[in-house]
Amino acid sequence: MTEKKANTRVEIDPLIAARWSPQAFDPERVVDSETVMALLEAAHWAPSCYNEQPWRFIVCNRHDNEVAWQFALSCLMSINQLWAKNASLLIVACASEVFSHNGNSNRWAQYDTGAASMNICLQATSLGLFAHQMGGFDAERAREIFKLPQELTPMSVIAVGYYGDIEAIEAGLVAGETAARERKPLESHFFRGDLETPYVF
Amino acid sequence: MTEKKANTRVEIDPLIAARWSPQAFDPERVVDSETVMALLEAAHWAPSCYNEQPWRFIVCNRHDNEVAWQFALSCLMSINQLWAKNASLLIVACASEVFSHNGNSNRWAQYDTGAASMNICLQATSLGLFAHQMGGFDAERAREIFKLPQELTPMSVIAVGYYGDIEAIEAGLVAGETAARERKPLESHFFRGDLETPYVF
Repeated sequence: MTEKKANTRVEIDPLIAARWSPQAFDPERVVDSETVMALLEAAHWAPSCYNEQPWRFIVCNRHDNEVAWQFALSCLMSINQLWAKNASLLIVACASEVFSHNGNSNRWAQYDTGAASMNICLQATSLGLFAHQMGGFDAERAREIFKLPQELTPMSVIAVGYYGDIEAIEAGLVAGETAARERKPLESHFFRGDLETPYVF
Repeated sequence: MTEKKANTRVEIDPLIAARWSPQAFDPERVVDSETVMALLEAAHWAPSCYNEQPWRFIVCNRHDNEVAWQFALSCLMSINQLWAKNASLLIVACASEVFSHNGNSNRWAQYDTGAASMNICLQATSLGLFAHQMGGFDAERAREIFKLPQELTPMSVIAVGYYGDIEAIEAGLVAGETAARERKPLESHFFRGDLETPYVF
């Protein structure tokens, strides 16, 4: 169940096609420090408006800082805790909403942070790990626990780890874990020249 | 000048390391339809909150719809027009700010759209093209020209094409084109367990 290649009209890069968001993580296998650094460097080199790099990532590793990891876990919606409790890393992704050079609002902060997080997910795939981003968490609790200053908006918690035992996940999650990946029709999200003209291949 | 590999502490995926944002595009070379579709499929398979896929991309191709392409070009800040005038594609990336299933505000719309755009840039790299995102454009003009409904926020215009002739770019742009890629210290954007503890490798 570790492969769920995207079903595309034309070939795309194998890394992008292979990435998906599982729920069956291996709670035992340590993600070594070189691997964690590769995830961070991948995010670090994402592009951003004015090269601001508005992202802030807090890495909570159950194998070297269980307190922080438990804090991150406690922010998740209970439906996500059911499976994320097996992830080796929980990475809290925040967007810094002001430009550092002038203190003005950075309207690209969340957009650019999403790009950096995408690179974490792809780098995980590249190294044989899996990443699963969650929007389902209590942002106010995260703000309190991690003492986030006002200008940081917590955007997601990214579970990262090695694939585990699908037999070990909750019964209610198995169907989602084994189902084919789905997307809405491409033509309703991609357009040619104007919004009236769906992009048909 | 087509290679500017990221300078990382540990090896990262070659695709992520190789991506950068040039200014010297080839105005003549057509991006064929299979290649465009690969860019779109890469974005299409990005993850998103509730699998909403909140992104909307309007592809403006100078070689098959010059009117739309000129419209997109006209939205850019003049400093960006100087080089983006040579890009084969200008793709307007928008975030749809409401969930389709209930009409509620989608606070992950921009974040998820940034992830999808990241995949476009990486897929471009994978196929030997280059992509350069711009925040520097007139969002109100884009809204008007492309008749964007209220719930769509234009986030960036992505120039895509093949590498061109560095001798042909404006004199004022050459230094940026040839300079090494830079990032702020990694430790100021990545943390271990809490915001007080920089992530030191």
